[in-house]
Amino acid sequence: MKLVCSQAELNNALQLVSRAVASRPTHPVLANVLLTADEGTGRLSLTGFDLNLGIQTSLSASVEKSGAITLPARLFGEIVAKLSSDTPVSLVFDGDREQIDLRSKGGSYQMRGMSADEFPELPLVESGTSFKVNAKALVQALRGTLFASSTDEAKQLLTGVHLSFDGMSLKAAATDGHRLAVLKMENALQNDNLINDDDSQNNSNFAVTLPSRSLREVERLISNWKTDDLITLFCDKGQVVFLAADQVVTSRTLEGVYPNYNQLIPESFSKSITLDRKTFISSLERIAVLADQHNNVVKIISDVSTENIIISVDAQDVGSGSESIPAKFEGESIQIAFNVRYILDGLKAIDSDEIKLCCNAPTTPAILLPLNSPLGFTYLVMPVQVRLES
Amino acid sequence: MKLVCSQAELNNALQLVSRAVASRPTHPVLANVLLTADEGTGRLSLTGFDLNLGIQTSLSASVEKSGAITLPARLFGEIVAKLSSDTPVSLVFDGDREQIDLRSKGGSYQMRGMSADEFPELPLVESGTSFKVNAKALVQALRGTLFASSTDEAKQLLTGVHLSFDGMSLKAAATDGHRLAVLKMENALQNDNLINDDDSQNNSNFAVTLPSRSLREVERLISNWKTDDLITLFCDKGQVVFLAADQVVTSRTLEGVYPNYNQLIPESFSKSITLDRKTFISSLERIAVLADQHNNVVKIISDVSTENIIISVDAQDVGSGSESIPAKFEGESIQIAFNVRYILDGLKAIDSDEIKLCCNAPTTPAILLPLNSPLGFTYLVMPVQVRLES
Repeated sequence: MKLVCSQAELNNALQLVSRAVASRPTHPVLANVLLTADEGTGRLSLTGFDLNLGIQTSLSASVEKSGAITLPARLFGEIVAKLSSDTPVSLVFDGDREQIDLRSKGGSYQMRGMSADEFPELPLVESGTSFKVNAKALVQALRGTLFASSTDEAKQLLTGVHLSFDGMSLKAAATDGHRLAVLKMENALQNDNLINDDDSQNNSNFAVTLPSRSLREVERLISNWKTDDLITLFCDKGQVVFLAADQVVTSRTLEGVYPNYNQLIPESFSKSITLDRKTFISSLERIAVLADQHNNVVKIISDVSTENIIISVDAQDVGSGSESIPAKFEGESIQIAFNVRYILDGLKAIDSDEIKLCCNAPTTPAILLPLNSPLGFTYLVMPVQVRLES
Repeated sequence: MKLVCSQAELNNALQLVSRAVASRPTHPVLANVLLTADEGTGRLSLTGFDLNLGIQTSLSASVEKSGAITLPARLFGEIVAKLSSDTPVSLVFDGDREQIDLRSKGGSYQMRGMSADEFPELPLVESGTSFKVNAKALVQALRGTLFASSTDEAKQLLTGVHLSFDGMSLKAAATDGHRLAVLKMENALQNDNLINDDDSQNNSNFAVTLPSRSLREVERLISNWKTDDLITLFCDKGQVVFLAADQVVTSRTLEGVYPNYNQLIPESFSKSITLDRKTFISSLERIAVLADQHNNVVKIISDVSTENIIISVDAQDVGSGSESIPAKFEGESIQIAFNVRYILDGLKAIDSDEIKLCCNAPTTPAILLPLNSPLGFTYLVMPVQVRLES
């Protein structure tokens, strides 16, 4: 392998694929990035892969001799990041020893790598069910749901986000058992979605659950893009591949039947309040300072006479507090209690000015909805049962 | 106690004094800030004190009733920080229960405090030896030396910075046993320094060692000031008080005889090299990526023929590297090795374009000096003994 490339491009590519390098690798080679230089295409390809999540990208390079090697991601990344951007970077690997020679302005580094043969192959499925998804829509769907997935590895499927493709719409859902976020994007998919369907599966109705960790990287990657590009998704053999421009993200899927969350959402509500979202967030954040000291519980009681809701906290020995904010009421008066963190998470995922809080009994699920928002967002929260004085 | 004050001013004052509140208090009251409202002066005074470091400040308030209470610093600080800045904050403490009532726009909080009587008295000595120091000069002296003090609590005196006052000059020094930073500021003191000398001590020649932790807070505090103010220092009974505007910082002193560091600095050098500081830092930072993987050691060897120095690292199994940078030589050729972190710390404390590295043998102290700098800065580093191939 022998090539010269731009420091800035190499640095960007390394930062990108390093996100898929395991921090605690189960095998030494998984701490490395794979570099593959191709004389024919004049490109240097970089791959990071922790066996679950894989990221691959490439950059143009003056390749004098093709070749492949793996190098320690952190070390190689740190040195490249600190190199001068004025001078191109030269990389030489003679194949005899697993060592690369890196040269830039005034500096010369020899780094020990491992053979490219030891690097696991990226599951680049380009068969099975496939979709073309609008990048912006995918980012919105992920941002609106990722936060609600479980962080408890024992909860398996719930550590992921469930993506359903139906006609031209994309639906994302995540729940940790205490709250559920569902976001439906119409017209998120391109209508020529039947590109490649080996299994003659009905493409217009397909669902998959993907690990939140992988999707966070997908979201981060796509949100940096400037264009309104389309992303191609391939789903096959327990793997999903996101393909866009010269970047590829692969992720294993979470196997199993995702809970039928639609049945959790009540069909009707006996009461609702409309609130200014930012005012509600500010008040809850002050109340949360005390709630976090005790059990995170806040009570919400409607004060119909003053057209306010009273948000209160009793952190016992530490102190207590209450906030009063204007509200528009529909139906009966409300007395309900929540984990303040769950409510705040949902409010921050919404971007409308006003929100609607709908509920029935103090023990049945409540939902938060954005008002006048183009997004089909529903956030369900289970209330906390407490003694509520009226 | 009953008062109304500005949210912004209360918040700033709380953030400030909270820096002196112990994170792991030895007594519950030390997790609190002391609030003292005075009807006569119309001021609310706030104090944080961890028995070593104390910070006191005050703000104007409409005080309806004088009084004092202590409140949990973190909790009170977090709530005040999140209050609306549009509305004044009202604080009421009726004296019967140790509980304060805080009100702002729409919100009302009751917080449990502790009696002001339990709060230890701040050692506000305003006697003994005193100096008027230029604030900017004090900040520079601290910035140039604090980093070189020891973080090892067992090293007692070396965990502090030694300040010497001599005539109109201020000298700061810190060492951890491996390196020593000395900064001398001429004209840093005002010449009417004999304000108050109870012990008839010779004010024109005085020295004290103060804990780095306290001095970091002093530096942080003063560096936020815009004016070129004078700070008054009082030293007495193992305490130092920094007095400026409406802010007071108190610190205990470190007792004992500080090492006579002047005798460590060689009087003459057989060789020296002049280097561009930023180029030297960039090269060392790349070399450090590999050096940090092994033993932090970098070798510096002069290459007189090309008028360069070669900085090299051998991190054994990980890799190796070398950088070549232009240098101006005086005297014999240099072969010496250092802990790269010590050299980088010193170079970053200097702000001149060029620096001079002076040394004798590979086993005797070397020094770094700024060139064309108004600051009298000397940084001494002990070399590391390694096998040096020429």
